[in-house]
Amino acid sequence: MKNRFSVIALSTTSQSDRVLSIASQCNEVLSNLGIKVLIDGSLDKLRSEGLSVSSKGSIISKAKLLIAIGGDGTMLNCSRKFGSEGIPILGINLGNLGFLADIDPKDITSSLLNVIEGKFEKDERFFLEGGIEGNKSRFLALNEIVVHSGKIAQLIEFSVFIDESFVYRQKADGLIISSPTGSTAYSLSGGGPIVHPDVNTILLVSMLPHNLSTRPLLVEAGSEIRIELENKKSILSFDSHENLSLKGKSIVRVYKAKSSLTLIHPQGQDFFASCRNKLGWSTNP
Amino acid sequence: MKNRFSVIALSTTSQSDRVLSIASQCNEVLSNLGIKVLIDGSLDKLRSEGLSVSSKGSIISKAKLLIAIGGDGTMLNCSRKFGSEGIPILGINLGNLGFLADIDPKDITSSLLNVIEGKFEKDERFFLEGGIEGNKSRFLALNEIVVHSGKIAQLIEFSVFIDESFVYRQKADGLIISSPTGSTAYSLSGGGPIVHPDVNTILLVSMLPHNLSTRPLLVEAGSEIRIELENKKSILSFDSHENLSLKGKSIVRVYKAKSSLTLIHPQGQDFFASCRNKLGWSTNP
Amino acid sequence: MKNRFSVIALSTTSQSDRVLSIASQCNEVLSNLGIKVLIDGSLDKLRSEGLSVSSKGSIISKAKLLIAIGGDGTMLNCSRKFGSEGIPILGINLGNLGFLADIDPKDITSSLLNVIEGKFEKDERFFLEGGIEGNKSRFLALNEIVVHSGKIAQLIEFSVFIDESFVYRQKADGLIISSPTGSTAYSLSGGGPIVHPDVNTILLVSMLPHNLSTRPLLVEAGSEIRIELENKKSILSFDSHENLSLKGKSIVRVYKAKSSLTLIHPQGQDFFASCRNKLGWSTNP
Amino acid sequence: MKNRFSVIALSTTSQSDRVLSIASQCNEVLSNLGIKVLIDGSLDKLRSEGLSVSSKGSIISKAKLLIAIGGDGTMLNCSRKFGSEGIPILGINLGNLGFLADIDPKDITSSLLNVIEGKFEKDERFFLEGGIEGNKSRFLALNEIVVHSGKIAQLIEFSVFIDESFVYRQKADGLIISSPTGSTAYSLSGGGPIVHPDVNTILLVSMLPHNLSTRPLLVEAGSEIRIELENKKSILSFDSHENLSLKGKSIVRVYKAKSSLTLIHPQGQDFFASCRNKLGWSTNP
Repeated sequence: MKNRFSVIALSTTSQSDRVLSIASQCNEVLSNLGIKVLIDGSLDKLRSEGLSVSSKGSIISKAKLLIAIGGDGTMLNCSRKFGSEGIPILGINLGNLGFLADIDPKDITSSLLNVIEGKFEKDERFFLEGGIEGNKSRFLALNEIVVHSGKIAQLIEFSVFIDESFVYRQKADGLIISSPTGSTAYSLSGGGPIVHPDVNTILLVSMLPHNLSTRPLLVEAGSEIRIELENKKSILSFDSHENLSLKGKSIVRVYKAKSSLTLIHPQGQDFFASCRNKLGWSTNP
Repeated sequence: MKNRFSVIALSTTSQSDRVLSIASQCNEVLSNLGIKVLIDGSLDKLRSEGLSVSSKGSIISKAKLLIAIGGDGTMLNCSRKFGSEGIPILGINLGNLGFLADIDPKDITSSLLNVIEGKFEKDERFFLEGGIEGNKSRFLALNEIVVHSGKIAQLIEFSVFIDESFVYRQKADGLIISSPTGSTAYSLSGGGPIVHPDVNTILLVSMLPHNLSTRPLLVEAGSEIRIELENKKSILSFDSHENLSLKGKSIVRVYKAKSSLTLIHPQGQDFFASCRNKLGWSTNP
Repeated sequence: MKNRFSVIALSTTSQSDRVLSIASQCNEVLSNLGIKVLIDGSLDKLRSEGLSVSSKGSIISKAKLLIAIGGDGTMLNCSRKFGSEGIPILGINLGNLGFLADIDPKDITSSLLNVIEGKFEKDERFFLEGGIEGNKSRFLALNEIVVHSGKIAQLIEFSVFIDESFVYRQKADGLIISSPTGSTAYSLSGGGPIVHPDVNTILLVSMLPHNLSTRPLLVEAGSEIRIELENKKSILSFDSHENLSLKGKSIVRVYKAKSSLTLIHPQGQDFFASCRNKLGWSTNP
Repeated sequence: MKNRFSVIALSTTSQSDRVLSIASQCNEVLSNLGIKVLIDGSLDKLRSEGLSVSSKGSIISKAKLLIAIGGDGTMLNCSRKFGSEGIPILGINLGNLGFLADIDPKDITSSLLNVIEGKFEKDERFFLEGGIEGNKSRFLALNEIVVHSGKIAQLIEFSVFIDESFVYRQKADGLIISSPTGSTAYSLSGGGPIVHPDVNTILLVSMLPHNLSTRPLLVEAGSEIRIELENKKSILSFDSHENLSLKGKSIVRVYKAKSSLTLIHPQGQDFFASCRNKLGWSTNP
């Protein structure tokens, strides 16, 4: 039987001391199974184990799976970089509050064996894409795109349109435009609801809004969201990673990206189990 | 050209003094256009105008449109009764806080002429359907199905499952299971988000939950929601209209109904305009 | 040195099997210290240990401390019944979510010894008092007084006045009027803030309000709160214990009671420790 | 009868075109009544009317009342600068959302006459004072003191202590420490309750907290609040006006200031009237 994951890449953005030994362990387990292991520059210290660093392009063209070692930050980064190019992502979680990476470092060997044997769950997520009118650059976010003043306790004023229909004009510290994936991240801190990844929706959650009638708003994910900003400096932020400066009367557009992401989970690990585990929900029926 | 609405029924559940004159005005406008007007028993006083009362079955088989005269209560009632059988519903709003009925009594003639001429927007909504395990009766709700103790400040304890996956166990005064249509009704009072009718989702909003980690939860509308109730008296309520008593360890199931509803709106009246008008949102970009 | 707690009463409202053995253990510890132990009718099974049941009046005139065995329900009950008459209350907590009773059954002996030796914290709380205009009966609540329709998902409409100043008119399922003590109880489920017991305030928290501009409101505890209810059946509830029926246009008055409550806590047990323990707050600086 | 307000100062921080004519009108009304009018540098254009600019010290020593012309920003500024030195403040409101300044420009003459005749309400407010351990500077805030990262969507981590009792450790975008006066300002946007100015309390409201168990917390106003910040850059902000940079493990202390503020209101204008007017509450009982 041909292995569905004949080539697997490893990557990280974490600075943790544990990353290297975990990556090394992955390499050992996978190599023993006859799987070709690739690493990117983030793991160049593994060259001592006979691995050579592959370029992003090379990983994208060859890898059938990417293992992201770190916390949610690593998962977001690897998802945007490799996942959006069609490589499924499996996350080994070094942290303690993650919805995306769900393999515990102490279970690496058994978890990898299970995944290689085909015992895993596929989980499709979508990216948000956004940009500024008059500028061709577009960026992806898996969790959320945020428009804000760049400074706390400083209002921005903006009008929101959905598919060219005017929604409202608002003053707030900012606006979080979140995917269902992001609904358990920054959007949740802002008072947004928890949205199962299968719901095809985009969330709009105002940050510290300057009126009492604002509530989280959910629109169909096929909608285009247009935000018209007043003549003031503001910032457009993608997963708190890419940040664009806006000046003058800017128009921001956000919509569901064409590319999607496949997450690989251990069997039996569903969204609600993550909620119970990570949000402190009751654990037994 | 054949009129698409050759037969139109009128109905109400309102006790307002204004209903009769509004119904009479509708009859006059429609009759003058050669449209056959039907009334149900709620408007039997119109028999003095030469109309005869039709049965529910007769209206369902003949009417191409039903005009509901009243507030949201009338709309909910007519939607469940006639709309779920495929009759599009147009609402004339006597009240002041309605998302479903949006023709103002003072605009009746012009609004009806526009609708007859084909100048209207169609708006598809879905019903929730629910019932109790071991009892074949099923009921529809357009806004929400609520499980509660029947008494305020009295907790019920329940476990929620989505498509057989355990979600959480909870103590609360009750649980609101809402459609997007209901997201601007009782669910909103309970802290739920505002959901555009096009989003294919079901909302779960706990009422005065007995813990701090509960948040509104949205699942894909194709999901079946199962609620297992402890051995205590509770009530299952459909649009605050139909109320079933639950005793002992009951299991409640809620899911998207097969039948759907077509609302007819004046042109230019979209969901966000209703929000601005009825929730006090800012009115200008 | 004369013992400050020369006579101690025991009481409960709990049906738990554990109550009797705990009461018996208290009796043993206290008797060995030469303290006179009284029981009320709730513990009449202890007569087999040579104790005789005292009347409420007798306990109030003789006891220097009352030990309430149970959960928050027992604490509320004993507080209203004995605490409001000047008897300090110490709670042994059988349950798992309590802010008032904080002695763990497994620590009874050492905790009682400490308290008798004077190692304890005093904690003063105030009661709310309320009643209906035209009816002389007044009732106490330690946590909250609630006005509501008696039925879930059924609105009541009311106007609120503070010291004769009009505040607002509202539609909601009900209104919670809470003391700081009650701020971690039903009021918290309704979205109210957490209020340290030393803050001299009364909280007004609307239950599922029918508008978006309502927020929890806090007024100075010396204020008189007047609620004018529309001509509809509603219920006035004191700590979910005493319930009065209201008919017609009723006027409810709520204010801080003259009598206050002294709670006795183990040393080192402050309000924030209870919050961390019971609300799941982080435990270490 | 000797006029209680024999010397009145005028000040502004507003850039509005209307300020000068309003100040001029005040000068005319007051001069005609034989009242000595002082201006500070913000109104030096009034020198053409024969007025000379007074120093801050001179105003503080001579003025019996200060009229602040502008919006809430002007009121905050004049309150900290002059009000904290014992000068009562009367606000003429150029804006449309103000809780502090409540004289409408079109009512200036009649309002001033009323105030001079003694027809006004006094309203005492307290200031918060705060600073950084190891730095002797202390600053006042009438609304709120905020600790934050200086950047949106960037967490800070901190521990809170009240009078040396540990409360909780938290991750959030920031923490708002608000007076009752500030409860209708930034704290309200952050989800805090509305607190009547007579309640002697300080509010702690976390901004976009990274957990679900955080709620607004109210402590007695005599408490000292200590915030221990992790080794990260953050900012301490007073009424969004004064901003201090924090580096390394900083300790911030906040407490009720000794100086207080006297606001002068037109008769009949109470706190709840401002709420109804400015928060969109219902207007009639």
